[in-house]
Order: sequence, then C-alpha cells, then structure tokens
Amino acid sequence: MGEFDLIERFFKRPARRNALGVGDDCALLAPAAGMQLAVSSDMLVEGRHFLPAVDPARLGHKALAVNLSDLAACGAQPLAFTLALSLPQADEAWLAPFARGLFALAEAHECELVGGDTTRGPLNICITVFGEVPAGQALLRSGARAGDDLYVSGSLGDARLALEVSRGALSVPADALERARARLDLPTPRVALGQALRGLATACIDVSDGLLGDLRHVLRASAVGAAIDAGACLALMDCAVQLDPDTRLEWVLAGGDDYELLFTAAADRRQQVEAAARAAGTRVTRIGRIEAAPGLRLFDATGHRIARQFASFDHFA
Amino acid sequence: MGEFDLIERFFKRPARRNALGVGDDCALLAPAAGMQLAVSSDMLVEGRHFLPAVDPARLGHKALAVNLSDLAACGAQPLAFTLALSLPQADEAWLAPFARGLFALAEAHECELVGGDTTRGPLNICITVFGEVPAGQALLRSGARAGDDLYVSGSLGDARLALEVSRGALSVPADALERARARLDLPTPRVALGQALRGLATACIDVSDGLLGDLRHVLRASAVGAAIDAGACLALMDCAVQLDPDTRLEWVLAGGDDYELLFTAAADRRQQVEAAARAAGTRVTRIGRIEAAPGLRLFDATGHRIARQFASFDHFA
Repeated sequence: MGEFDLIERFFKRPARRNALGVGDDCALLAPAAGMQLAVSSDMLVEGRHFLPAVDPARLGHKALAVNLSDLAACGAQPLAFTLALSLPQADEAWLAPFARGLFALAEAHECELVGGDTTRGPLNICITVFGEVPAGQALLRSGARAGDDLYVSGSLGDARLALEVSRGALSVPADALERARARLDLPTPRVALGQALRGLATACIDVSDGLLGDLRHVLRASAVGAAIDAGACLALMDCAVQLDPDTRLEWVLAGGDDYELLFTAAADRRQQVEAAARAAGTRVTRIGRIEAAPGLRLFDATGHRIARQFASFDHFA
Repeated sequence: MGEFDLIERFFKRPARRNALGVGDDCALLAPAAGMQLAVSSDMLVEGRHFLPAVDPARLGHKALAVNLSDLAACGAQPLAFTLALSLPQADEAWLAPFARGLFALAEAHECELVGGDTTRGPLNICITVFGEVPAGQALLRSGARAGDDLYVSGSLGDARLALEVSRGALSVPADALERARARLDLPTPRVALGQALRGLATACIDVSDGLLGDLRHVLRASAVGAAIDAGACLALMDCAVQLDPDTRLEWVLAGGDDYELLFTAAADRRQQVEAAARAAGTRVTRIGRIEAAPGLRLFDATGHRIARQFASFDHFA
C-alpha cells in the first residue's frame, strides 16, 4: 500500500461543510461572516502521550479529542481538522481502527478532515483543529477578575489513576479500572459547555497538564490569584477506589490528562452557570474563587491553609 | 528549561496581524471579507526528510518553506502558522538557530507563528500554515484543459544531486555542491509567482515528490494527459556537473524536494504568463502541453517518444 492509496482508503471523505477537502495542495475554509477562526495544534508521541499497546481506535478518538478540548476552552464550534501522521509502516490492522475511532468523534462534532500529511517514521500524530467563534466572543485565559467564582467541569484524577495502574503503582478492581481507563483513553471534549459559556465565563482553559498547573496560566494571564477549596476538589474523582487522601488530592489537582474545562464567572451569575451546564449536559463544580492577591492558596474543609506543593506536567522539566 | 520557558524564549512573538497569537488554548484568525483561508500541514521527520547532521537554522527554514510552497501552489498569501515540535531534549544550541532560520523566512513572508505544541520525543516538526486567497480564485489541480501549455518554475534536480552526494553516490566540486545543497536545504517557496498566476494558471501544484509524480496528480484531477519535452527539461538543472544524460533526466523528472510550481495555462496567454513570472522575479520554462488523451508521454529533442519509467517518491512504496 503506497502513501496515496493509504490516504485514499483510510482518510479521504468528501468535503461537505468546507469548500475543499483532502486532495489538493491546500484545503479551503471560509468562516461565516462575523466569525473568527479558532485554531489549535496538538502532537501525540508514542511512549509519551500513549503506550505502544493502546487500542488504535481509542488513540484515534483521543488524538482528536485533545484538540477539540482546546476549541471547547475557547467556546468555539468545531469545523474542520488536518491530520499529519508519521507511521513506522502502512499497517491496515492499525490504520482501519485508528481511522474508525477518529472519524466517529469527528462525525459526532461535524468536524471534517480537510487535509494533512502521511510519512514514515516513529509513530506521531499531529492534529490541527479549526473552529468558529463569533468575533470578540472567544473565551480567553486573561479575563478572570477578583471576586469571580472558579469552576471545573466533570471529574478529575481518574485518568491519572488509570496511568498509575498501568505503571504498576497500584491495583484496583476491574470495573473501576475500566472506568478510569475510559477517562484516560476516551476523554470527552466539553464542546457544548464551552459554547454555552460564551458571554458568561470571564476566563476558560482546558485542564490537560493538571488543574493547578493550568490554573496558574489563567492567574498569570489575568494578573490575579485564587483560593481553592480542597474538600470540594476531593469529591471530583469519580472512581470509588480506596486511596489515601493525600494521593487522591494530588491526582485531582495535578493528575493530568483530564480534558475538563476550568473557568471563572462573576459570582452574581451562578444561576446562569448552572443553567449553561444543564443545557450542555455537563456537571460543573464550584471549587474556589478568584482573589486580587497573586498566587494560589489551597484550603481544607475546616478552612486551614494547605502548604503542599503540586507539580504540573511539563514535558521538559 | 521547562516546556513553557522554551516556548517563551524561542517561539513567543507578539501577534501583529492576527487577533490572538501564542499563549491561549487557540489562536484566532479572521480572514478579510471575501477571502477564503487556505490551509496545509507538512510533517518533517529526522532520517526521512532531513539528516541528523543538518544545520538547525536551515532546518527551521525548510520546515516552513515546504508549507509555504503549498500556499504558493494555491495562489494564497501567507498569513500565519502553527508549529508542533517533538524534541529529544530542550537543547538551546539547537533551538536558537532553528528558531532563527524559521523566523527569518516567516518574517520575509509576514507569516506569524500563532500557536502550537512542544513535547519530548523523536525529532519531528509539524507545521500547519494559513494563507488568504480571494474566494473562488484558489489555484487547484483540477483545472487543466487539453491544449494548455505546461510550465515549471525555477530549477529541478539539484536537490537530488545534493542528496546523492550526501549518500556517497558521487562527488562533485565544492562550489557546485554548495549550490546544490542550498537547493536541498533552503528551498525558495514560489509565493509571489503563485499569487501572480491567479486567474491565469488553469491548474497548479508544487513539485515535492518529483515532477512526473506530481504532474500525475494534476492529470488525474483534471482528467487529461500530457506530452513533455525532455530536452526542455534537461536544461532545468542548474548545477553544471558532468552527469550521464539518463541520470540527469531522472533527477530532473523524478528527483524530489524541488519545491517549484508546476502549472498549466491556456496557450493564448503566453505573454501574460511571461509577465507574471517577470513580476514575481521567478524564471518559468514551458516544458510541454496538456492533451485530451489520458497518460503521460515523454519526447526527446528529435520528437521521438521516450519509453523509460520514472518512479516518484512515496513514503510507503
């Protein structure tokens, strides 16, 4: 199977929403009048972002999901993506399920594959995703204000639990592991929630490197600080597994690979935030508030300051 | 040096032309009214697209140049790009010249880095580039018609000469090698020519896998055939090195890594094509014509058909 057969067989679909799709030097996109195009790129490397043994269908899902999560964090509606793929060989038994997992998620979001590149090399998946957002309405990291509430969507820490089990650090019952593994391999990009938060959230980011690490990006961009309720955070882990509270707190606050939305909103808009979450079918939890004093302060259920440090994920640290 | 320091030090520049650049979940692009966005992705892998010993400044240039060449082939004006980079380590001695070579070319084309990703892994450079083209005016592969002239820009085959020397297949004088190496490492994307050909070329593609291989994409997309003048092609190689004519013809027709534009135009528009080439400061050569009969026919200077087969580059063949 040659390079062009491979593209033809696994990755070429007719362009429906976009002017020109796979098969020319460029794809052509035309955002509707008054819309800006939101763009994000994420690269997934074997051994770094996924294990060699991962199910290729799940990998196809995840490679697109982590990119859609960036669109969600901007409040953008998915439109199209490009896929650049470096593969050790043109292996149909890998390509067919990879494409199936990828396109299942793409179709669920009406997000078209419009172009890309395939080459031989160590397994590497680079997706660039495009979404539309009304001009001036994108959710940014820089809009958090003192007094705002701080929220996070869904659950946190379960992906890290699955990773630690695969590293042999602990063992958990099979059903709990299956659910945790689904969180690690099949993250749900919060696309509907991101759009529902337009005009409502003052700042938003997706949690990919760990809640505290990603929160620091918001605090720095907004020039504010935050107080976090650790008790509310502990309840964010779904899997009912016996863990010491310190470990649980670390995995919730600095676990990584969660792909939830962390966002701020004015305190007098709590009802609207709840309504947006309901409309999007996504749970959100209020976990703290934004303060004028720089820095990040963590409090336990009794209101005492917690002094521990948490490291967020850094590929080069 | 951590991941975010690396981005801050080497890759963060203020956004000037685009609404939002590096440092949020998404970049924001807004094509001007009446414009479409042309998008292309290319991935460069160590050992496949470049040798480990390559000068990082040249690699920075080439990684963007091959993407700009795709915009050129569509007649689009460069606007912005994203960079996803997988690196074995955060090595300043590599990153500084890589960024220098990359930004020198980016600035020459006023093409802004607006986002991307950095991760640890085998060296892999994935760029997605964005350009603007008036709606409906993009140059496509599908517009060639019987009777059209067939042209190619610049020179062909010299990059292959440099590659063969680096493989030890032949040796050539140092000054000739230096010029050939510049063609391999520092290709010139024909951006001005591509724009000058809007409304004039009936089809266009960039020559990256070899002239004949890329021409076949045009012929298939346009449902036509072509007759090629091999004598005109032989003159396309710049480096005045002693080579047997068969080898020279193969490197010109199927060398790869040329990044020239191959395009068609109606035979009654030769003067306009010459004027467009002059305005763009780029030489173009008429090398054949489009015919109704499918297939690709090659003729020597005496008008005799040449029966040889030429294979174009395929990563998985």
